[in-house]
Amino acid sequence: MTSEAASGAAAAVAQSGGEATLSVFQYLLVYNAFSFTFATMAAATLFLWLGRSQVAPAYRTALTISGLVTAIAAYHYWRIFESWEQAYSLQNGVLTVTGYAFNDAYRYVDWLLTVPLLLIELVLVMRLSQRETTSKSITLGFAAALMIVLGYPGEIADDNTTRAIWGTLSTIPFLYIVWQLFVGLGKSIDNQPESVRGLIKQARLLTFASWGFYPIVYMIPYTSLGGGAVETGVQVGYTIADIIAKAGVGVLIYVIAVRKSQAEYGSTYGGEPARA
Amino acid sequence: MTSEAASGAAAAVAQSGGEATLSVFQYLLVYNAFSFTFATMAAATLFLWLGRSQVAPAYRTALTISGLVTAIAAYHYWRIFESWEQAYSLQNGVLTVTGYAFNDAYRYVDWLLTVPLLLIELVLVMRLSQRETTSKSITLGFAAALMIVLGYPGEIADDNTTRAIWGTLSTIPFLYIVWQLFVGLGKSIDNQPESVRGLIKQARLLTFASWGFYPIVYMIPYTSLGGGAVETGVQVGYTIADIIAKAGVGVLIYVIAVRKSQAEYGSTYGGEPARA
Repeated sequence: MTSEAASGAAAAVAQSGGEATLSVFQYLLVYNAFSFTFATMAAATLFLWLGRSQVAPAYRTALTISGLVTAIAAYHYWRIFESWEQAYSLQNGVLTVTGYAFNDAYRYVDWLLTVPLLLIELVLVMRLSQRETTSKSITLGFAAALMIVLGYPGEIADDNTTRAIWGTLSTIPFLYIVWQLFVGLGKSIDNQPESVRGLIKQARLLTFASWGFYPIVYMIPYTSLGGGAVETGVQVGYTIADIIAKAGVGVLIYVIAVRKSQAEYGSTYGGEPARA
Repeated sequence: MTSEAASGAAAAVAQSGGEATLSVFQYLLVYNAFSFTFATMAAATLFLWLGRSQVAPAYRTALTISGLVTAIAAYHYWRIFESWEQAYSLQNGVLTVTGYAFNDAYRYVDWLLTVPLLLIELVLVMRLSQRETTSKSITLGFAAALMIVLGYPGEIADDNTTRAIWGTLSTIPFLYIVWQLFVGLGKSIDNQPESVRGLIKQARLLTFASWGFYPIVYMIPYTSLGGGAVETGVQVGYTIADIIAKAGVGVLIYVIAVRKSQAEYGSTYGGEPARA
């Protein structure tokens, strides 16, 4: 990102030990947000994988993949946390840059893996025909990967024009995905059991809404905010979007899988509660 | 917290290598308390997750979440321990500050995740109707998160007045939760099997009692104790409260889940012993 690249460049140019553009409060906010997100993603992973035994075999792959998404994210947030810690030194209340660049690329590496998987978990929990599952997984997964790859050159660009060009190119596969989610999968949703139809629409909406958050964060560098505020906004913003898109959607996928298992296989999977 | 901020500020002003306000005994007490708590939380996690196979599927999510609470706490106690170790240096029997601040924010980051989950595990083990489970989980979880968020500005405040204002605001969602636990859930408790009614009331009381401990610790800085004693009291106090509220309540949830499984599904889950 511009600010990122700028502060990264500044860090590279600055003598190590130079003063940071971030305030101590901003530094700690991002620091704690990264640790919080690692804990959330790791917890979501365990929740999703332990929950596999509570759904019918047909839905276990959806939970496996939902847990993979949060596990991959947990790994990357651990790395991001370490990189953040290495880039700055907070001693005697003074924040300085160490000269080591903060590696933000972990985010794109993460998304390249997790965003296609996020769409696949949504397709899997719908339990379409084998042919449809395969074709939707491939086309949606490919479009998602393309969206991430096209966004990255803009993220690391030094000027806002380059950022805008790649950002716009990245929007094309994004719009294709939205069209697929709302039109292509629309008919299949009407064929879902009534108890989960609303939930699947919620999962689709949460995916769409949380993804809509990323372009907003992507555009923060266009604002007139100072370097420290931009950096903090970008980091905390992406962090919140990641939690909603991965852990939030994952929990919804779990609830859908449980309800569908109950609707299709009855009391083996919890069925109706003893006392209504 | 005041003492914290004060000691943080002291560390900030003090040259690294300056003398600590803590005695060696106090430093080691907190150090060992953190290590003890990590071990307790990790052990509780394994106990709760291994126990999942011993309860009916309907109660497995309650144990999954109880284990998540202690797992998240174990992670944060690991981080707190590392931060404590980094903030001080004990060499040749002399305790000095290193200039690296002790990051107490891990506690609030932990609570933001675990306190809502603690209430959800209590709701889940009661096995209410789907609608009630969802609505109680959302309202109680939201109130718990609000309570933590409102407490934090007071915790990091430099003066006791600011501390008191945020502490009081944080009490509002706390009172709502207490009211929900004792009045809102009261009727549902009367519908529970007789063998667990007392236990659920105990879990509720233990939750309430251990939570009542936090405000007392929060108010330690109001006392006329010295800086080192306040810091030690706050750290050890929160640690004890965390063990009771998370590992203690978790084990009670496990016992309730086992008894309800036996009451509802008989000998499959241990039921009555062959020879009574």
